[in-house]
Amino acid sequence: MRLTKSTDLALRTIMRLAVTGAEPCTARQIAGEMQVAYSHLAKVAARLQHLDLIETRRGRGGGLTLTATGRTASIGRLVREFEGVGDVVDCEGDVPCPLRQGCQLRMALRRAQEAFFASLDPLTVDDLVASPTGPVLLGLVGRAPGLSP
Amino acid sequence: MRLTKSTDLALRTIMRLAVTGAEPCTARQIAGEMQVAYSHLAKVAARLQHLDLIETRRGRGGGLTLTATGRTASIGRLVREFEGVGDVVDCEGDVPCPLRQGCQLRMALRRAQEAFFASLDPLTVDDLVASPTGPVLLGLVGRAPGLSP
Repeated sequence: MRLTKSTDLALRTIMRLAVTGAEPCTARQIAGEMQVAYSHLAKVAARLQHLDLIETRRGRGGGLTLTATGRTASIGRLVREFEGVGDVVDCEGDVPCPLRQGCQLRMALRRAQEAFFASLDPLTVDDLVASPTGPVLLGLVGRAPGLSP
Repeated sequence: MRLTKSTDLALRTIMRLAVTGAEPCTARQIAGEMQVAYSHLAKVAARLQHLDLIETRRGRGGGLTLTATGRTASIGRLVREFEGVGDVVDCEGDVPCPLRQGCQLRMALRRAQEAFFASLDPLTVDDLVASPTGPVLLGLVGRAPGLSP
């Protein structure tokens, strides 16, 4: 079972921004720290901004910061937004499954997926950067790349 | 969030065998019905057999059938076996993440993954072929391909 790379990046981006608080950080800097393509990070950041979880300050000394909403938003909500709530197996592919209407397997997998999201619902970014994660992450900021949780 | 194609095939195979009960069905026939490569279906079947969920009767009129264990086994157990309990994001890739020891995100995602599996734990194959799924599936047996839930 795998989450998409975009969800992974979104989670790491808000964690990264959480540990430096009000100090803006550019998307290019974060992409460098995480060793990912800037274009991918920029797309993820645009989506986080659209969800009002981060904001961009333009100009010299500008960059990304978490919004107040981003500080308190449910991690379950973020993962739902990025993953979508589509099927975890391919029910509607090129050859749509004849069982897909009222399929017991499909319903069971949807309930399981919802249990996954619900487990993350009570968490905020503060929980994800609680010790020891936050202090370790802060120590890595601006240093050598390799930040790929 | 996606499950692997092998997990999907494993679930469909036991459902397919459940609806025809004691009547054996060859891996080639199931692969044809599901429009998947025989080699892939055969690998999945071998793994199901290793888990004692299905058995193979050789010779004329032989084929695959569910075992007594397969009839009562937990679907959560089957999905755990096929998916593994590794990370849902890439913590140990080519550049292992410096946060991976004691990472709060990693622990949260593991709890979420366990919630997914646990949701499937109480189910057996009989639950997956309960009406309307089982009767529809039985009506498709041996007919045109396209069985891809």
